[in-house]
Amino acid sequence: MGKRGTFITLEGGEGAGKSTLIAALAHKMTADGLEVLVTREPGGISIAEQIRGIILDRSNTMMDSRTEALLYAAARRQHLAEKVLPALEAGVTVLCDRFVDSSLAYQGHARGLGIDKVRAINEFAIDKTMPDLTLYLDIAPEEGLKRVRAAGEEHGREVNRLDLEALAFHERVREGFLKLMEQEPGRIKAIQADQDQEAVLAEAAAIIYRYLEE
Amino acid sequence: MGKRGTFITLEGGEGAGKSTLIAALAHKMTADGLEVLVTREPGGISIAEQIRGIILDRSNTMMDSRTEALLYAAARRQHLAEKVLPALEAGVTVLCDRFVDSSLAYQGHARGLGIDKVRAINEFAIDKTMPDLTLYLDIAPEEGLKRVRAAGEEHGREVNRLDLEALAFHERVREGFLKLMEQEPGRIKAIQADQDQEAVLAEAAAIIYRYLEE
Repeated sequence: MGKRGTFITLEGGEGAGKSTLIAALAHKMTADGLEVLVTREPGGISIAEQIRGIILDRSNTMMDSRTEALLYAAARRQHLAEKVLPALEAGVTVLCDRFVDSSLAYQGHARGLGIDKVRAINEFAIDKTMPDLTLYLDIAPEEGLKRVRAAGEEHGREVNRLDLEALAFHERVREGFLKLMEQEPGRIKAIQADQDQEAVLAEAAAIIYRYLEE
Repeated sequence: MGKRGTFITLEGGEGAGKSTLIAALAHKMTADGLEVLVTREPGGISIAEQIRGIILDRSNTMMDSRTEALLYAAARRQHLAEKVLPALEAGVTVLCDRFVDSSLAYQGHARGLGIDKVRAINEFAIDKTMPDLTLYLDIAPEEGLKRVRAAGEEHGREVNRLDLEALAFHERVREGFLKLMEQEPGRIKAIQADQDQEAVLAEAAAIIYRYLEE
């Protein structure tokens, strides 16, 4: 048995640039000889995809916010069990686009269910597999939403339900992330996402490499 | 606003006779002028049915036991929010076939996830709506499985290996229910289910009417 892989998650509000960063990080880390798995829930895991399908189905208008939080936790568990844990056990570095902190910031803080309550169901879901390191891409919600809108127009991407939520909601999401950072400064590292892409990548890579060398 | 309805759940292992009892109770209580709703999860609630569909889909062989417990909790929440709570608020007496105690006994105790851990996700799901009264139909698992098999043979179902393996599991389920009764003797009342149906009904009705008159 080799060394267990490192579990790194990326978090941030809409338009913070997570997808761009994660692709660039994977490219760089692979070039540097690391074995990397990039994933995000539900990540092609059939049971998790089925669960996500229920959450995103627009005809499910009666979805209760607690049901939704439990479904996110269920999809998280299955993705973790089938994809993340086997990779970590094989010594692979896992880069996961959103994880438990998103549920805490969105459902727990912004939707008002309570960070501690959402944490309780997520603790059950992850069963002690917390990320070793979390990068939080911080951006002013107004700027983030501007980026999302611009990208949407460019690619003909449909604006989804989350995009349409009021700016105030995204302000609360950010507030939630900042609260989490205060609670776990050792695990969660913020990066200012309004810099250019190379600067964001350099900063993220520096944090990750420092952690891996520890 | 009238008086809030009473929330009564029925619990028990396989073959304990819950379905028969619940139908007889509803018949009697309705005849006595009570407004009664009989239900069981997912109870025709679309989102809960979709969730239950994922749990029961035999092709989902990779289902993790924690995912399953979270999905049961999610279906429970939605059924509660859309069906049970509105009825209770309208003053209706709700008779629910299985509820949180089944998850605690089956997933928590018998499958070994831990009663306290499964209770944590269920507390999130029910958000303080615990049953006012729970009737536990107690039967020796051997006797219960014999009844299930007899009913199966009547309908052409053969006894299989799973039925035999099941005995040890169902002993643990019963152990779980007995543990819950010790923890909450005020809420959970046991009825010996190996009596004839009229005796079981009389005992159950006596417990319920005593509670309603309090």
